Amino acid sequence: MYRSSMARTKGDHEARRRDVSEAVWRVLAAHGFDGLTLRAVATELGATTGLLTHYFPAKRDLVAHALELLEQRTDARPRRTPGQGLAALRSVLLDILPLTPDATASNRIWVSSWDTALADPALTEDYAGKYGRSRDRLAERVAAAQALGELPPGDPAGIAAGAQSFVLGLVVQALFAPAEFTPERQIQLLDTYLAGLAAPRGTTPAAPLP
Amino acid sequence: MYRSSMARTKGDHEARRRDVSEAVWRVLAAHGFDGLTLRAVATELGATTGLLTHYFPAKRDLVAHALELLEQRTDARPRRTPGQGLAALRSVLLDILPLTPDATASNRIWVSSWDTALADPALTEDYAGKYGRSRDRLAERVAAAQALGELPPGDPAGIAAGAQSFVLGLVVQALFAPAEFTPERQIQLLDTYLAGLAAPRGTTPAAPLP
Repeated sequence: MYRSSMARTKGDHEARRRDVSEAVWRVLAAHGFDGLTLRAVATELGATTGLLTHYFPAKRDLVAHALELLEQRTDARPRRTPGQGLAALRSVLLDILPLTPDATASNRIWVSSWDTALADPALTEDYAGKYGRSRDRLAERVAAAQALGELPPGDPAGIAAGAQSFVLGLVVQALFAPAEFTPERQIQLLDTYLAGLAAPRGTTPAAPLP
Repeated sequence: MYRSSMARTKGDHEARRRDVSEAVWRVLAAHGFDGLTLRAVATELGATTGLLTHYFPAKRDLVAHALELLEQRTDARPRRTPGQGLAALRSVLLDILPLTPDATASNRIWVSSWDTALADPALTEDYAGKYGRSRDRLAERVAAAQALGELPPGDPAGIAAGAQSFVLGLVVQALFAPAEFTPERQIQLLDTYLAGLAAPRGTTPAAPLP
């Protein structure tokens, strides 16, 4: 498919880089990071592994590129118009869930990347920072919904950490059992969760659990 | 460390199998499934890779053993006395969280195994079944808490799916940021979540979200 001896223009070069990235993405969506090898990408691309070593001299270069792609595609993904208050919180949480084939592929790759990220202290720190910033943004939306009286008072950071936990775990469940966790059911579960957050608390606190 | 030419008794054989399993577990806890290789296990054990091919002729045998170990150790882990009603639901959820070094190692290995499990249709189905049965057990506890009047009425299966999502996502957050998600904070987040489930709902349903 790719002839490495051809004279190429800059445009060809960029087009090929895009093709290589597409092939890396398809391998990740189908086989995860554990299945990400030069050979698998070469097969997907219809090229030789020799050609790919030009882009990725070592396995870690391939993994680094894959993580970069994941970040880029997550940043570039289509998003809902957020609205305000509780609707904005809901919208950012919906944007995370695997409700479309593209979002499912992305989430499958994110979940797969956790193994790689937890095995490397620098990556673990990088991921912790990413999730921390994501919680900070959620906390801002929680505080905005509280200011509008749509959520009862309470520590926005704690509510944000809870919401992020809920959504990440729902992603995992939905990836393993897509027939059970249809988009409709995912949305229903999220809305039930948000309704629980919005429910007015009684004036007496709940009895402490043993 | 291990002399393969020694005459061995059945007891020796079993002791060695245990040592091999321990080494596999330690490699998984440190490096995840992506780092699980015969060479890594051999180094951990102080043995040759040649010895290990006796136990694991192929990489998939090593992965199968690792998954079996994960299942066995999860089944055999110490558990809280469940109590009844809402306290029983809380106790089974606490048993999942990475509140101790052992539970952290186990959870890190579970999260790592998701990549491997999602890449293999038979394993995906197996995992889906496992999580489905776990939700069924949670739903029974939800129903029991409802019968005691500790949780408001509502579909137990949906509440169980929500609780499982919450806890799995909290596990992931805690693995990436253990300093932020201390055991105390994890318990606090879970208790806030449970208090939200227990909060009496108003007689008029919340306004539908846009």
